[in-house]
Amino acid sequence: MLTMLVNPEIKELIKTRKYSELKEILIDWDPTDIADLILNLDEEERALLFRLLPKELAADVFEYLDYDTQIDLIRSMSHERIAELLNEMSPDDRTALFEEMPPNVVKQMINYLTPEERKIAQQLLGYPEDSVGRLMTPDYIAIRENWTVQETLDYIRKYGHDKETLSILYVVDDKGKLIDDIKIRDFLLAPLDTRVSELMDGNFVSLKVNDDQETAIEVFKKYDRIALPVTDSSGALVGIVTVDDVLDVAEEETTEDIHKSAAVEALEEPYPDTPIMDMIKKRAVWLSILFIGEMFTATAMGFFEHEISQAVVLALFLPLIISSGGNSGSQASTLIIRALALNEITLKDWLYVFRREIITGLMLGVILAIIGFIRITVWEYAGYSYGEHWILLAFTVACSIIGVVAWGSLMGSMLPFIMKKLGFDPATSSAPFVATLVDVTGIIIYFTVAHLMLSGTLLP
Amino acid sequence: MLTMLVNPEIKELIKTRKYSELKEILIDWDPTDIADLILNLDEEERALLFRLLPKELAADVFEYLDYDTQIDLIRSMSHERIAELLNEMSPDDRTALFEEMPPNVVKQMINYLTPEERKIAQQLLGYPEDSVGRLMTPDYIAIRENWTVQETLDYIRKYGHDKETLSILYVVDDKGKLIDDIKIRDFLLAPLDTRVSELMDGNFVSLKVNDDQETAIEVFKKYDRIALPVTDSSGALVGIVTVDDVLDVAEEETTEDIHKSAAVEALEEPYPDTPIMDMIKKRAVWLSILFIGEMFTATAMGFFEHEISQAVVLALFLPLIISSGGNSGSQASTLIIRALALNEITLKDWLYVFRREIITGLMLGVILAIIGFIRITVWEYAGYSYGEHWILLAFTVACSIIGVVAWGSLMGSMLPFIMKKLGFDPATSSAPFVATLVDVTGIIIYFTVAHLMLSGTLLP
Repeated sequence: MLTMLVNPEIKELIKTRKYSELKEILIDWDPTDIADLILNLDEEERALLFRLLPKELAADVFEYLDYDTQIDLIRSMSHERIAELLNEMSPDDRTALFEEMPPNVVKQMINYLTPEERKIAQQLLGYPEDSVGRLMTPDYIAIRENWTVQETLDYIRKYGHDKETLSILYVVDDKGKLIDDIKIRDFLLAPLDTRVSELMDGNFVSLKVNDDQETAIEVFKKYDRIALPVTDSSGALVGIVTVDDVLDVAEEETTEDIHKSAAVEALEEPYPDTPIMDMIKKRAVWLSILFIGEMFTATAMGFFEHEISQAVVLALFLPLIISSGGNSGSQASTLIIRALALNEITLKDWLYVFRREIITGLMLGVILAIIGFIRITVWEYAGYSYGEHWILLAFTVACSIIGVVAWGSLMGSMLPFIMKKLGFDPATSSAPFVATLVDVTGIIIYFTVAHLMLSGTLLP
Repeated sequence: MLTMLVNPEIKELIKTRKYSELKEILIDWDPTDIADLILNLDEEERALLFRLLPKELAADVFEYLDYDTQIDLIRSMSHERIAELLNEMSPDDRTALFEEMPPNVVKQMINYLTPEERKIAQQLLGYPEDSVGRLMTPDYIAIRENWTVQETLDYIRKYGHDKETLSILYVVDDKGKLIDDIKIRDFLLAPLDTRVSELMDGNFVSLKVNDDQETAIEVFKKYDRIALPVTDSSGALVGIVTVDDVLDVAEEETTEDIHKSAAVEALEEPYPDTPIMDMIKKRAVWLSILFIGEMFTATAMGFFEHEISQAVVLALFLPLIISSGGNSGSQASTLIIRALALNEITLKDWLYVFRREIITGLMLGVILAIIGFIRITVWEYAGYSYGEHWILLAFTVACSIIGVVAWGSLMGSMLPFIMKKLGFDPATSSAPFVATLVDVTGIIIYFTVAHLMLSGTLLP
């Protein structure tokens, strides 16, 4: 918001090389705004502007840039400056950067670190991918239970400068075991001579260093925390995870779920950064599986080839009927997958959903059937002839629609439950997957209804 | 996590009516855990347990419960207790509760409030629905620029108890105008005799009280803040919005987007809480629109009735071909809608996407065409006869698949851009919507290819 206003002015300062003036303005900016500005500059200007920033601010800004821009900037920097930057970065954001880099580059980068930072970086990279350890930073404030509030605040004033958050303090015993977490709020409100032990309630929520990152998302969602402590298997405090990093992971997972809903394998990178061959691979796998599934429509149609040849008019309504089932199935599966993801319903609610979706599906089917019936009647009177038995044909189409739409709703709502029960992600029962299943069964429903209703008239 | 372990023990304490013991345990619990426990009890136990909680904790727990449970509890309470609870709640959570209640109940509830709280509640409810004002709480800490750090910390210790957050302090001038926001971190790290004015950078991000809630989500995402100040049109500080409330709104919006992706009108309530008639209405609207769109398939098929009657075998592969187009279209539209939502691509990238999707679509088409060709060949040799011209038929199917899949990718990727350009939500071009469009065009592509390739052989 700020950026938009000052941009031309800043561009002018860059162009006219008024660097000291530029620096004066930028040091008061929010790091996210500087990051935004950098993204709007060309490569040369980026490097130039970034060089102006004091090292602490530079590290803050760097953490908000995307990987490609980070790499471009690193390429433009001297070895000294790279070392400065990497040592200044938060350990968690540094791990995120290293995760993206090729292993040989990471090795080189680690050499730039001071012995102390190197140890931290290597330790964090030692945790499994997608584990809480990879999101962690060891820059937290640990205090002891016999301290007073005054002593704690003095300690923070002295040692708090490079800590990731001061919002929550962690109480550890003499073996480093986490015994409580206390919000800074409690310290700000308590009389200064209060002991830490008096503020403790012995009740805290923590993550394990080898927990899955998805677990971290769940716990953050439930407890509304800014940061959570991370312990090793012995209960010793080894780091903290902050909510901003977890929100980034949560956004990635939502993207994965949305992609899955359209039967696309999760992309690891944003759309424009995914190489086209990767993109084709990610899409071809599911598209081929669906295609092979959909082949059963040809097989099903084969069984009714005779009926079609006797009443070609039946084929005209086939796409209309099967797509209606697919659409109602997509609606049902999407609603159920999301409700399961938000814990609005659980596995044991399947029977409740079953009953509900039968009713819903039948009602929706009736609505579409009426529209379909009207369509055929209007066309017939408008001069397009469906033959002497058109009214029987209209009833066949209408009854099929009711059956197919109700069946679609039922399949679409039950498949996510079945997937979950079998241990798969319910999101696997994506809309295209449901539509494919409903297409095959829809053909069978349609021609069976036709057989029952039209034998002796349209079908000899 | 904690709840699961202690639950049987707690149940036992409730059953044996050991209330003072129960109370002793609960006051150390996290409000979210107590809320969880309450949801797992039956109605009578809920009321009983809730009555045990001290009023401050009761209000905290109450804020984590869903609306239906909140109402049940209120029904079980005395007027005095309701008054106590409502006065103790955070103004923002209270607004959220009032928003759900019928207007006459809200009126009654507002009468329970003290004159001071009543004024706050009425003011917050006065802001438009979906505006930032409705998410706001006036419980913030405002300070003056001539104070010292010591004075500020003393002030917090005295007046901070009922404030929503102490993480960020707001500097206002003598007219109440917001002039800066400063993190508590800066106060914790600065020498005690530092003046507030020395900590100020004059750079802050704020929301306007009438801003849309979506704007608030965007700003929170960009600036990684725990809370943001809200000002009126004159720039005076009137409240703050905290990130937890914004995250709730963001989750609702994601759900809306996901529902839209399957052509369901956004539900206002969770799946199990939506009355079945509402559910049918929400689904019937789009289902009917899609159905009417899909009717064009019957019209398109009508044009080719003659071809079908001459070569019924053509109809067998129709569902397979059109569904492949629908599936590749769904993939493309979902990828593009999400990439647009995350600002990975913007409107001006349409040509880049256009080129990419033509190539991707053609490649995917070729892959499926090969599978389709093999399928027909295998069936032919396995004894299922597609007639003497089967190899021409196989080529017709294969070429149609390439055309339809490429066309599907292109339509799917371009529709979100078109929607956005026209001022609609790109998410409107949902997978079923794209599939319907591709079905109609797919039929035309298939029979046109058939006409070109089979004239003089299968088609006389």
